[in-house]
Amino acid sequence: MAKQNIFDNEEFFDGYKKLRDQEVNANILFEIPALKSLLPDMKGLKVLDLGCGFGEHCIEYVNQGASKVVGIDISEKMLEVAKAENSDPKITYRLLPMEDLDQLDEKFDLVISSLAFHYIEDYKGVVANISRLLSDKGLFIFSQEHPLATAYTGDMDRWTRDDNGVKQYVNLRNYGVEGERRSTWFVDGIQKYHRTFSTVLNTLFESGFSVEKIIEPIPDEAMIEKYPDEYDLLHKPDFLLVRARKA
Amino acid sequence: MAKQNIFDNEEFFDGYKKLRDQEVNANILFEIPALKSLLPDMKGLKVLDLGCGFGEHCIEYVNQGASKVVGIDISEKMLEVAKAENSDPKITYRLLPMEDLDQLDEKFDLVISSLAFHYIEDYKGVVANISRLLSDKGLFIFSQEHPLATAYTGDMDRWTRDDNGVKQYVNLRNYGVEGERRSTWFVDGIQKYHRTFSTVLNTLFESGFSVEKIIEPIPDEAMIEKYPDEYDLLHKPDFLLVRARKA
Repeated sequence: MAKQNIFDNEEFFDGYKKLRDQEVNANILFEIPALKSLLPDMKGLKVLDLGCGFGEHCIEYVNQGASKVVGIDISEKMLEVAKAENSDPKITYRLLPMEDLDQLDEKFDLVISSLAFHYIEDYKGVVANISRLLSDKGLFIFSQEHPLATAYTGDMDRWTRDDNGVKQYVNLRNYGVEGERRSTWFVDGIQKYHRTFSTVLNTLFESGFSVEKIIEPIPDEAMIEKYPDEYDLLHKPDFLLVRARKA
Repeated sequence: MAKQNIFDNEEFFDGYKKLRDQEVNANILFEIPALKSLLPDMKGLKVLDLGCGFGEHCIEYVNQGASKVVGIDISEKMLEVAKAENSDPKITYRLLPMEDLDQLDEKFDLVISSLAFHYIEDYKGVVANISRLLSDKGLFIFSQEHPLATAYTGDMDRWTRDDNGVKQYVNLRNYGVEGERRSTWFVDGIQKYHRTFSTVLNTLFESGFSVEKIIEPIPDEAMIEKYPDEYDLLHKPDFLLVRARKA
């Protein structure tokens, strides 16, 4: 199956890096706090980070006491930044697409992935490999774009808005039709894969995972007051986060 | 908390009974087949049916070999029909709101509920009682209106459509705001409760259930050819079904 390496496209990379350097964005407000809330006590854990990107998460896991962290990514450019900015003797960065996890052969206590799975065509194969790499009762924690966001097929507006510009309706046309989606994000032709909520979860159940918690981040009142634009997210969450345990 | 007994309203009851007497409707096409696909081998099982209505499910469980079925419902009028049309020595029909499950004190192998939970305010309390009434490894299977359907707040159109009348956008305004919804279905002021996907599932996880399968029914190509109107459901599913096991 296709492996997409959009992060080594220079135009994309530059746009993405600028976004990541912002002080406030949807990742910082919603995804990162939700992901952190799902983490266990990291002391002494062996951690595998799938799609580690710039390595910001890897270095944080070490700072929280992880004994070993392996970060893999498909993008050489991302890993160059990771090695330059977030290096540590306990971290190994490795150029490896998530689809080639069968090249790994050691056990981890925690496998984690932040906002990478919606780029993956063979989600089921990746989940099977994650189960193989986890020790008994090991944890698998991930975030992805919410199915309500990935459903969009790009053939019309994503939203309709009321007179105040607030999102009212969302284009869910073809929510039930899973598979490839093409979109524009810094560059044309970004390839994503839409899966329904039930497929995301059933794949975990069928692979022997017991799901413990799901989060669809939504702003609270204090956040809406501080960042009124994020009020839009009451309309629907943009991210889905899952904590699952190998049974 | 409020217990709604809309089914004993005569106008509602008459409209609902006519709908149920149709040869084809969304229940028959989507909800019932999905619910059946989640059922275990019923032979010898003790079954509790929550919101049993006319008892069509109860009699079917007996026909499939259940050794005992208890059907409870809040509506006297519904239970009158159940006793008249779907009676069996193995079935006990009992006038009892789902919110008063603490009045029951026996163990069941399977607790099942079809399209009733979106009327329930205290979902968490009902789930806790279901766990108490289930034997070890017992199954809890239910269907409800999908969170994408219950999200609707009724203050504007539920859909926008393209020039061919096909649904394109759905009003998800306030998906993130859980709680009471009022709508009109045969009569005004039908009271439902919206919960997000994550609340529906996390409540199960927190109550010690292990979820095994989720279904969001969507028409297949054969069904779309036969009932082209149901193509709308690709837009989003109207029902959510869950099979969970007491851990």
